[in-house]
Amino acid sequence: MTSPAFGDVAHLGHVELLTPKLDESVAFFTDVIGLREVGRRGQSVYLRAWGEYERYSLKLTGASTSGLGHFAFRTRSAEALNNLVEHLRAHGFTGQWIKDEYGHGPAYRVPSPDNHQVELYYETERFDEGDGSRPFKNQPARYTTHGVAPRRLDHINLLAKDVKASRQFYELLGMRSTEQIIFDDGTEVGSWLTATNKSYDLAITKDAKNVQGRFHHVTYACDSREEVLRAADIFVEHGVFIEGGPHKHNIGQTFFLYCYEPGGNRFEVAAGGYMIFDPDWKPIVWTQAERAKGQAWGLQTVSSFHTYGTPPVD
Amino acid sequence: MTSPAFGDVAHLGHVELLTPKLDESVAFFTDVIGLREVGRRGQSVYLRAWGEYERYSLKLTGASTSGLGHFAFRTRSAEALNNLVEHLRAHGFTGQWIKDEYGHGPAYRVPSPDNHQVELYYETERFDEGDGSRPFKNQPARYTTHGVAPRRLDHINLLAKDVKASRQFYELLGMRSTEQIIFDDGTEVGSWLTATNKSYDLAITKDAKNVQGRFHHVTYACDSREEVLRAADIFVEHGVFIEGGPHKHNIGQTFFLYCYEPGGNRFEVAAGGYMIFDPDWKPIVWTQAERAKGQAWGLQTVSSFHTYGTPPVD
Amino acid sequence: MTSPAFGDVAHLGHVELLTPKLDESVAFFTDVIGLREVGRRGQSVYLRAWGEYERYSLKLTGASTSGLGHFAFRTRSAEALNNLVEHLRAHGFTGQWIKDEYGHGPAYRVPSPDNHQVELYYETERFDEGDGSRPFKNQPARYTTHGVAPRRLDHINLLAKDVKASRQFYELLGMRSTEQIIFDDGTEVGSWLTATNKSYDLAITKDAKNVQGRFHHVTYACDSREEVLRAADIFVEHGVFIEGGPHKHNIGQTFFLYCYEPGGNRFEVAAGGYMIFDPDWKPIVWTQAERAKGQAWGLQTVSSFHTYGTPPVD
Amino acid sequence: MTSPAFGDVAHLGHVELLTPKLDESVAFFTDVIGLREVGRRGQSVYLRAWGEYERYSLKLTGASTSGLGHFAFRTRSAEALNNLVEHLRAHGFTGQWIKDEYGHGPAYRVPSPDNHQVELYYETERFDEGDGSRPFKNQPARYTTHGVAPRRLDHINLLAKDVKASRQFYELLGMRSTEQIIFDDGTEVGSWLTATNKSYDLAITKDAKNVQGRFHHVTYACDSREEVLRAADIFVEHGVFIEGGPHKHNIGQTFFLYCYEPGGNRFEVAAGGYMIFDPDWKPIVWTQAERAKGQAWGLQTVSSFHTYGTPPVD
Repeated sequence: MTSPAFGDVAHLGHVELLTPKLDESVAFFTDVIGLREVGRRGQSVYLRAWGEYERYSLKLTGASTSGLGHFAFRTRSAEALNNLVEHLRAHGFTGQWIKDEYGHGPAYRVPSPDNHQVELYYETERFDEGDGSRPFKNQPARYTTHGVAPRRLDHINLLAKDVKASRQFYELLGMRSTEQIIFDDGTEVGSWLTATNKSYDLAITKDAKNVQGRFHHVTYACDSREEVLRAADIFVEHGVFIEGGPHKHNIGQTFFLYCYEPGGNRFEVAAGGYMIFDPDWKPIVWTQAERAKGQAWGLQTVSSFHTYGTPPVD
Repeated sequence: MTSPAFGDVAHLGHVELLTPKLDESVAFFTDVIGLREVGRRGQSVYLRAWGEYERYSLKLTGASTSGLGHFAFRTRSAEALNNLVEHLRAHGFTGQWIKDEYGHGPAYRVPSPDNHQVELYYETERFDEGDGSRPFKNQPARYTTHGVAPRRLDHINLLAKDVKASRQFYELLGMRSTEQIIFDDGTEVGSWLTATNKSYDLAITKDAKNVQGRFHHVTYACDSREEVLRAADIFVEHGVFIEGGPHKHNIGQTFFLYCYEPGGNRFEVAAGGYMIFDPDWKPIVWTQAERAKGQAWGLQTVSSFHTYGTPPVD
Repeated sequence: MTSPAFGDVAHLGHVELLTPKLDESVAFFTDVIGLREVGRRGQSVYLRAWGEYERYSLKLTGASTSGLGHFAFRTRSAEALNNLVEHLRAHGFTGQWIKDEYGHGPAYRVPSPDNHQVELYYETERFDEGDGSRPFKNQPARYTTHGVAPRRLDHINLLAKDVKASRQFYELLGMRSTEQIIFDDGTEVGSWLTATNKSYDLAITKDAKNVQGRFHHVTYACDSREEVLRAADIFVEHGVFIEGGPHKHNIGQTFFLYCYEPGGNRFEVAAGGYMIFDPDWKPIVWTQAERAKGQAWGLQTVSSFHTYGTPPVD
Repeated sequence: MTSPAFGDVAHLGHVELLTPKLDESVAFFTDVIGLREVGRRGQSVYLRAWGEYERYSLKLTGASTSGLGHFAFRTRSAEALNNLVEHLRAHGFTGQWIKDEYGHGPAYRVPSPDNHQVELYYETERFDEGDGSRPFKNQPARYTTHGVAPRRLDHINLLAKDVKASRQFYELLGMRSTEQIIFDDGTEVGSWLTATNKSYDLAITKDAKNVQGRFHHVTYACDSREEVLRAADIFVEHGVFIEGGPHKHNIGQTFFLYCYEPGGNRFEVAAGGYMIFDPDWKPIVWTQAERAKGQAWGLQTVSSFHTYGTPPVD
């Protein structure tokens, strides 16, 4: 066992959302967002964005409540996968191997310190459109010409009772901390981590209800801010509730738009942001006062953004 | 009868294209371009873009060849219509009233000096989505979320044996010349005219085959250049032949993309360009040498752009 | 005297802003916004945007307070100017001719019912860059490569004690009402009017202090929403206070960004919006309930936007 | 010594261009492109883009001809640097350590098989604007508000007599091949490699003159395609020769614009493109027939693009 390195986690692979309104959630993600349904199994429906090389990135599962089922990172190699699992075990994080999941090989599922279900897997099924004649052969599929049509899954934002403990867990996997919010009393209330050159693949923010395991949002990325603005029009005209944006985050400098999907989970469409090429990047730390200034151009965040998470807690 | 003034022609209303492949043309304009079919009559199918207040802007008519059926200007008022008709007659241009066309009231159809069929009408049917609850109530319909989804018909480009004679005909209607190409021998080889604050609503360019009545292209406008770039990807991935662009025209400063629809007519998606607010605008004249430099950023126009028109001439 | 028609007012020509910090205001408009200083006279500095055909569009005048000096419409012709003046006089609106203003010919300056100083003029000085070799000869000057670099003056927003009376005054000039806000008690609290195919050139909104003659904002237009987003970054990085946006207005569907210039006047950078080609356009009326929903994508307008005007009133 | 891995080369750090017109080249890169001069030493001027964390990315050196001086990769760590050097030596590539270069620590300079001068370094000087109060503290400097204002150096394109040998050399450094052009006779005429999640950081294309060591272009990246379109206008209005574009590459799907800087080197402004997250990415291979179709939307590449390189060869 060697110490995991940056790059051992290759990227965020997929996210499973629970929804009490499966049909409506599927309709939202296909008709409004423009994802493509690629399979069903039991109570689960699998969806993909047009620019993703793997078979799917979103698993919607019918359930009694909204919330996060699990999320999964693909590793750099089979060796990296085994090494990461050993490393987690050595630090007291024990999970189990799952061998029959849709679209990918064996996955090690382990609860994080905040009780989010995290999977690590390496073997995967590449998406094959079954159409050898497509002109942009370096793209996994044709561009989707309906709905918001994001290119790919971008990141997930967890709520955590203990942000620091969660952040350290993902650092165990070799992920790099890129930005943080540290309040005046020393509490780490937000942490952003990356496995790639993107400024983040994972965000962890403090749960206002002080409970574990809740979920803030999942984000799909478009290539341009114009597409995010277009999405805002589509949301309004389709009766989708917009919680915030379009506006720019200070953190990551990404251009964002938040809504709720019919099952109650928060969903973000985003574009832009900076990339990190410096291998010695030191996390940017934002203070409580800086945070109080609002988003990048001064937008004050609506209070629900700080309090609403799924599954809901009384 | 008073002399027509700028503004008596309110705007370009609709264009009728002939197509030997009606079904394929309809499929192209609905599936790829994202226009909406609103009616059928005989061999004709009527289509609209989402941002247009009138019922339709494109009439596709099955025929033995491609080409222009007719195009139509809406006038400022009923009085302006009658006055324009009188004025045309006084200048020897005589047509006939047509009373039963789809979607609008009586139209005076008159052949131009180059034998294009031009209609003038005032009474019109406004598009009613039958949905009083749409949020952007200053828009005639919801934004279309599939295909290229242009906002509206923008302009038509005629080919003419005698550009100057045609230009003078449209000036009789009160339209304003905004730009021209005059070759070294004094020949007017291109003229752009407007009825609005847009830099042009009508273009007339010299027919390389020296025949009358042919058609170069019709153009729909998007709000942003990003949408035109997106259209280029959609065209490539749907096997639509791109003849030129995306690039910027010197004339009008519009961002353009040309393709052929399945029936053989040239079709343009465009965005941008400047507006003219000066009531005393003098036409900008481009010389032969300036034209030889290509488009705004140096693109050399493909030869077919200068020679291909519909209906084709042997 | 004939009744003025739509089009007799050709367009908004220029706006005079008063500023207690003339040097700082000039620095803001040149360095940050990217306007160009073209002249000085007494306490006034004249500025232009790169895409304007007239010599200037903004007159900054040193004064003891912020506020609107005057604003001016160019007419369609000399005849239209005289006719409009007669028409105003016939309706009891009397002003005076001013003959020695910078950059344009005789202007009739008349106070509106809300005591805003309005000028009408026809003769004007066209901007000449003195550079016959510029490649885009249909543009009045080269694009500005520094600062926000808007193309042109777009509109002005007045505050009025009596919105309806003001609106009717501008309708006397042949301007067309395009949108309105009518509250449940029948009060007209906002009116938008146009002299062109743009959805508005003039906005009039109710003064929360119930006084006359105050000013809400002046707006310059960019060609794309990307430029407005870029402006927001520039504002933040130059310490310019952003009051609201970037976001989309329901009214006009324009993409907006509001800030305060150093003298205290509100300034907007905008892009997009729809055009009106229907000569029979009926004003869109927004209700009190619709307004309460906020801007197009749900942004709640900050309270200062409803209360802050210049000159400030105790 | 361990075998280098993907990630050992962290990113492209800087490029040195030779120019026979140093002053004009500096003026072009500062005034037109909007780079910032940060230092001078001897015949060299150092420049940076606003979004780069290192002190500079472009070194312009006065010389008798145009061409590539050298280019440099920053490594992941000091250990990785030493290991890469050992690995190169073990494969017969021997260079020398250079210890006194501007802005970074010791660099190992080694000629590639095609005799391009390549440097590897780890220690570097971070850019410090000396302004702790800037609001976007996760950005190394304020956004530049003049000129084209690209965010960062993106990639370099070498010409090579033997593309395959060069490609294998960079693969020795752990870089990943992402796309290739293989002609019908088996000749590798183009290879694209990456050290990051970008689809390429380095391109190698066949030298039409069949000589070694020449240079095709260096590229800076903007965040949006709108900025590339804006750059095209700026180029035209500043008399900068545009060789091709704006258009989209099939390879990398990047949006490009090529010009020549005053010294004769080809320079590209680009935006967009796809990212690669798959750790097992297999190079996309384009055939001779596919290449003959032109760029992504059909633009035929001008012949100079295939023949012109620097330094020029008779």
